[in-house]
This record gives sequence, C-alpha cells and structure tokens, in this order.
Amino acid sequence: MLIARVIGTTVSTIKDEKLHGKKLLIVRQTDEFGEAVGKPYVAVDTVDAGVGDLVLTCAGSSARQTTQTKDTPVDAVIMSVIDSLEVDGKVVFRKS
Amino acid sequence: MLIARVIGTTVSTIKDEKLHGKKLLIVRQTDEFGEAVGKPYVAVDTVDAGVGDLVLTCAGSSARQTTQTKDTPVDAVIMSVIDSLEVDGKVVFRKS
Amino acid sequence: MLIARVIGTTVSTIKDEKLHGKKLLIVRQTDEFGEAVGKPYVAVDTVDAGVGDLVLTCAGSSARQTTQTKDTPVDAVIMSVIDSLEVDGKVVFRKS
Amino acid sequence: MLIARVIGTTVSTIKDEKLHGKKLLIVRQTDEFGEAVGKPYVAVDTVDAGVGDLVLTCAGSSARQTTQTKDTPVDAVIMSVIDSLEVDGKVVFRKS
Amino acid sequence: MLIARVIGTTVSTIKDEKLHGKKLLIVRQTDEFGEAVGKPYVAVDTVDAGVGDLVLTCAGSSARQTTQTKDTPVDAVIMSVIDSLEVDGKVVFRKS
Repeated sequence: MLIARVIGTTVSTIKDEKLHGKKLLIVRQTDEFGEAVGKPYVAVDTVDAGVGDLVLTCAGSSARQTTQTKDTPVDAVIMSVIDSLEVDGKVVFRKS
Repeated sequence: MLIARVIGTTVSTIKDEKLHGKKLLIVRQTDEFGEAVGKPYVAVDTVDAGVGDLVLTCAGSSARQTTQTKDTPVDAVIMSVIDSLEVDGKVVFRKS
Repeated sequence: MLIARVIGTTVSTIKDEKLHGKKLLIVRQTDEFGEAVGKPYVAVDTVDAGVGDLVLTCAGSSARQTTQTKDTPVDAVIMSVIDSLEVDGKVVFRKS
Repeated sequence: MLIARVIGTTVSTIKDEKLHGKKLLIVRQTDEFGEAVGKPYVAVDTVDAGVGDLVLTCAGSSARQTTQTKDTPVDAVIMSVIDSLEVDGKVVFRKS
Repeated sequence: MLIARVIGTTVSTIKDEKLHGKKLLIVRQTDEFGEAVGKPYVAVDTVDAGVGDLVLTCAGSSARQTTQTKDTPVDAVIMSVIDSLEVDGKVVFRKS
C-alpha cells in the first residue's frame, strides 16, 4: 500500500456503468512524513475521505477486494484514513 | 487510475482475434492540471473518447472488468471521460 | 499496452515445461514515434513478429489471455503488429 | 519480492472492515546490502516483524496468498524475516 | 519477463509456511547484453539456477503459474536459464 494525500476530485459524466455513484479522488503518494512525492493518481474512496486527509491506497486486483469495488474497473482504492505514523519510535504524523 | 490525455491512434492488421473491433488509443499520463507527463501507452477505448480528451485509464487485470474487455489480452482501458478536475478547492480543468 | 520494437531473440534449454515451443523475443518500449526508450524486456510472440517490427505488448495477468499463453508463467505478450501510428492527426509511423 | 527494512508503523481507526486486526508496517526497499533505497510503502505483517528488521515483501495479488491476507484489500505483505544475505559468495548481511 | 543475473542468496527461518523448501535468489535486471542495471529483487528459483547465471524472471500473478509456486505468496520466479541472446542479428551473450 502507499501512503497518499487526497488533493482533489474528478467529475465525469461519460463513464463505465459500474463507476456510477463511485467517488473518485485525486491523490499523491507521500513519504513516511506525509510530504507529497511523485505524480498524482486517482483512487476510489470507500471510507469517506476528504481533501487534505492522509490515506492508504491499495492497487491492482487487490483494489477490487472491497464490497464497493468488487468486479469494478478500478485499479486503486482508498481503504483507510491514517490517524498517525510512527517512524523509528517517534510519532512523525498525527491527524489534526 | 491515471489521468491521461488521448494523443493518437494505432492501426494493426495482424493481432489477437479478441482485439478485432477494439479501438486502441495512444494516451499520455498527465498531472492533476491535465499537462502530459511521462511515456505514452496504449489503452482500449470503451467510452468513445477522442484525440484531445482528458480521460481516466485503469490498468492490469482491472482493465478486463468492462463488458468490452472481459477475457481480452489488454492491460489498460479508458473507462471515463473527465469533465472537470478540482484541486484544493479550485477547478483546475474543465472540458471545453 | 506498450508500443515496443522487437530487437532480438533469446535461447534457453533449461526452462519451465510450459515454455517449450514458445518464441521469446527481446523488445524495447518506444515513444509514440517508434523511437526506443527504456530498458529491454522479453515477451512471448503470438503473432509471428520479427526483429525490427513495431508491436504492442500486454503485461501482467492480461498476458495470459491469449490461447497460446493461458496458464503459462509469462508476464508479457506480443499480441499485435503495428501497421501505423497517428498522433494529433498526422501519421507518424507506417510499417515499411 | 523486494528486500525491505521495517521503519515504522501506521495507526488507522477508519478502515475497511477486512483490515481490522491487521498490523500495517512502513517499510523501505533496500539494496542487496540492506541499505534503504527508494520511497516508503506499507505492508501487512504476517510474521511478527519489528522495526529495524530486514524482511521480504511480496506485492500484488500474490500478497493475498497468505492465510491472513486472503480476500483482503492489501497489495503488499511481509512474509519472511531475513536472517542473512550472501552476494557473490560473501555474507553481506547477518541479523544481529 | 526480465533478463536478470543471479547475484546471491537469502536465508530466512521465520517465513510463511508455503515458502518452506523454496530457494529464494537475489537477482538484478540486466540490459540486452547481460549487464546489470537497476535495483536487486528476489525470485523463487524453479530451474536450479546458480549465482552468475543469466535467467528470465516472470513477475506478478504469472509467477504463480509454475507447479512449484502455485498458490504461494511469491511475486517473482526464475523459470528459465538463458543460453544465448541475439540482438539485431548478432549473438551478444552466450553462456560459458
């Protein structure tokens, strides 16, 4: 899984029928301190995450292992909102 | 999923029989503002996208979860045309 | 899928029994104009491609969706020979 | 599989129900000598690994092939703690 | 598939039960001439390869398509030892 920050939202009218009602958020991978690195990607939100939240995303066929994404053409899912990260014994991120 | 722009088309006579009748478009990943980054790849179009459109593509086994791509040797599918992107509360892309 | 050019061949005597009789070609990803970029990889040829051909390759579990690669330990397949590529309305590659 | 070092832990209250009770560790890929390289990622621990341990992680659908991760939305698993690494005939890492 | 050179071995006591008896080798991807490039990764050996051998590795779910790796939490397998590589009509590598 990747640690990622939610940075935005996408709106689409024309889409596969299995995507109707799904919330597709724009996220960017972060390092272990919550700082964004790398290119943005889009993930289905299954945990009511919001812009600014630090989340975990799961990719590939594993992204279809939630009840909301089963048999759906999606390759990334947000399946957790991060409360805190601890690195080498120190808390380096805590959700405000 | 990746945000991508459709930049072209491919034509092939010799191909796997399951690819007959499929439209294979050349796309390039973009950043969250719709600017192309990275190398081109090819995706099956399932939503009648056209050159210039900003789309969402889905990769891997998830690309076979549409009715048009089931059991087909394809690893990327266009399953949505993007209307608009919003980042940090501002609309940064709107389809013209 | 990736646009790739066939650059060579591999020969192996010791291999998984499911690979017997398979042609394993060395390819390199190209950009949308057919110019090679990136590292080489090896793909099973299912369309009688030859060195110099521009082809499409499909990766991951999708590479096992052809009749020749079903249930086989291969993660990349050549399933199309490219005739032409068109970018932004111009033909940028045509097979000679 | 990747050689990786465990560098931290994640805490989440809001998460997919299948993740309850799972330990999600932050790891970083290392080179063959155990030196960290690249960005951090998060893997489910199935072997009671701890911060500082050098481990093997397995990605993608293969990460769901342990009894603890079956049918779970996770794409990386720690399924081995490394005792030692030998490169070109020399022991280059030994667990202390 | 990737062309890779076997550079070492891993030893683990604590591991998933399905990994018992499996030989896990450290490999590095090579270019088409057999020169190592990129970071090391670990693959299950199914063809009795040894340190120094040039091999083919297969990744992802396809790595579980050999009799030795079926249903096992591994995402890379060595399923061929390379005898020779030919690029643009010239033999560029031959096993000694």
